[in-house]
Amino acid sequence: MRPNINRRVLLSALTALAILSSPLLTVSALAQTPSASDPLPSWNDGRAKQAILDFVKATTDESSPTFVPLEDRIATFDQDGTTWVSHPLYGQALFALDRLAEMAPKHPEWRNSKPFKSVLDGDHEAMAKFSEKEWFEIVAVTHAGMSSTDFAAIVADWLPKSSNPVFKRPVTDLVYQPMIEVMNYLRANGFRTYIVTGGGQDFVRVYSKQVYGIPPEQVIGSSIVTKYEMVNGKPLLMRDPKLFFNDDFDGKAIGINLFIGKRPQIAFGNSDGDKEMLQWTTEGDGRRLGLLVLHDDAERELAYGPANGLPDTTVGTFSQALMDTANKSGWTVISMKNDWNTIFAGGIKEAE
Amino acid sequence: MRPNINRRVLLSALTALAILSSPLLTVSALAQTPSASDPLPSWNDGRAKQAILDFVKATTDESSPTFVPLEDRIATFDQDGTTWVSHPLYGQALFALDRLAEMAPKHPEWRNSKPFKSVLDGDHEAMAKFSEKEWFEIVAVTHAGMSSTDFAAIVADWLPKSSNPVFKRPVTDLVYQPMIEVMNYLRANGFRTYIVTGGGQDFVRVYSKQVYGIPPEQVIGSSIVTKYEMVNGKPLLMRDPKLFFNDDFDGKAIGINLFIGKRPQIAFGNSDGDKEMLQWTTEGDGRRLGLLVLHDDAERELAYGPANGLPDTTVGTFSQALMDTANKSGWTVISMKNDWNTIFAGGIKEAE
Repeated sequence: MRPNINRRVLLSALTALAILSSPLLTVSALAQTPSASDPLPSWNDGRAKQAILDFVKATTDESSPTFVPLEDRIATFDQDGTTWVSHPLYGQALFALDRLAEMAPKHPEWRNSKPFKSVLDGDHEAMAKFSEKEWFEIVAVTHAGMSSTDFAAIVADWLPKSSNPVFKRPVTDLVYQPMIEVMNYLRANGFRTYIVTGGGQDFVRVYSKQVYGIPPEQVIGSSIVTKYEMVNGKPLLMRDPKLFFNDDFDGKAIGINLFIGKRPQIAFGNSDGDKEMLQWTTEGDGRRLGLLVLHDDAERELAYGPANGLPDTTVGTFSQALMDTANKSGWTVISMKNDWNTIFAGGIKEAE
Repeated sequence: MRPNINRRVLLSALTALAILSSPLLTVSALAQTPSASDPLPSWNDGRAKQAILDFVKATTDESSPTFVPLEDRIATFDQDGTTWVSHPLYGQALFALDRLAEMAPKHPEWRNSKPFKSVLDGDHEAMAKFSEKEWFEIVAVTHAGMSSTDFAAIVADWLPKSSNPVFKRPVTDLVYQPMIEVMNYLRANGFRTYIVTGGGQDFVRVYSKQVYGIPPEQVIGSSIVTKYEMVNGKPLLMRDPKLFFNDDFDGKAIGINLFIGKRPQIAFGNSDGDKEMLQWTTEGDGRRLGLLVLHDDAERELAYGPANGLPDTTVGTFSQALMDTANKSGWTVISMKNDWNTIFAGGIKEAE
């Protein structure tokens, strides 16, 4: 049922896409359970760690003037570049390219038509120049035309076989241990943790519980149209190649309101697409906290911005304009290099 | 800020719209807390009550072959006609008409343009013939053009002043006590209760916690487009007069998948618009239960179908085709007349 595909061709093409020189994976600790004495052991003492500890105290101590009732404790996390690696390409783009190669034997016509031909040929120069429309053509054939149940099974099947071209490990191994600790710490303090991603909602829901301890109903993301169809007397939700909701930039604030109807107390992001989510969060009444992960650690992970003079990138851009907004707005910038003593959780973690 | 409006003219027009003769409100008990001996005291012994009790035992007893883990215990409830009165018009339609009358002094042009003129004149004959497009024109001016925060405040302000034209009580007084008991009973057994309504999501979210014990994030409904705008340096979500999602018929199954990503174990409805939700629910694996409220109690509430030879209606239609599907599918039909010894919760209830 699953034809053999030449993954190596595809992956070497992707590796060539990496804008930055291949970093060295030096630290890969197992996830640790937060202890009572230090709930955030992978965080070095410093402004970022202190901001999180102070925020939790100020919102959960009943004697605090900024105490937040249990039902309103909402924490939102962007995914790509915030909770897991997003370079050289988003995990979901790796899925789309693998899936395209896997489907190719049944689609000989792709050999002669762009953008499919470029992917199958490993033509990284052409791929680097793909327009949004061309990416959506790839998403359409790889993410639509099947039922929601079948799509989830395809993603679940792919995950353990996936391999990030830079780190040579399954994408779900590349989650950040400090963020897992923050999620556990917030949950232990009564916060409900949500993923709010520009990526596909139905893609992330497949592994969110296992990897982040976040159930499907707390994953908000981009989605395509689904249609209700009766097939042989059984109802199916069929996936249509049409965008339904784009959960990025202003869409993140809109999506939070649509799905939760409450404003987060705390929000984590890493790129220009997270600005409105942090704005919507921190402009609320009472104590709020917005945080941005800055990828400034070329040794242990990656270095890109272009904020603070870091190398430029089109994947998960942290612009100088975002840095200026962060400084003006009192958002906390997390330096991977200085604030984290451990980067990777090292494997799929089962959170409570 | 709120001009005086002639509510009486409007309400008498609405009363005339009632298809059925005005029923007698004979029972209005206070909500009771379910006791250990009988968690559903407002339900008479019979097939419907037994089906609910058996379902809960079969899904929550760890020794049961159809045991459902806590995280998958999802219960969905339609609102209009299932958890509260929907005649002579949906509660939200009453809001729209009241709001239109309230806004009219600032819109002299409405005096000469349909459909507004018909509402303001109390022309019930014209109103009874409103097309969907005309209704949406009324929704557009009453539900859009303000921020999400302002809209919630307008609805909250209206609720205690609202009056159902048949029962002469605020709409939130007209919730069904037996359904409140079922919600509490399911929650006590680890189910998360969701409203899944064709009505407006942002409308229902204003009172869902107070009336049903259901928080905003567990209300799935129809919605209009919102836009993220910065006004005087503060972000607002502005409501646009464009339909975003129609959570009715097939939209209910689609909405459940979009918002929860899990299939309900149990679903309650009352009309043709709930068919797909019950189908999607009961076609799942393991033990599932679909239930439909039949309004067959002209004495204590209302009688309409046209299923089972009851009077016909265009508001919350329970067609004979739906009854046939229910019988064929093993769905439980709840007779208000025979299954409920109490109809109304009698007031706004604070559930846990």
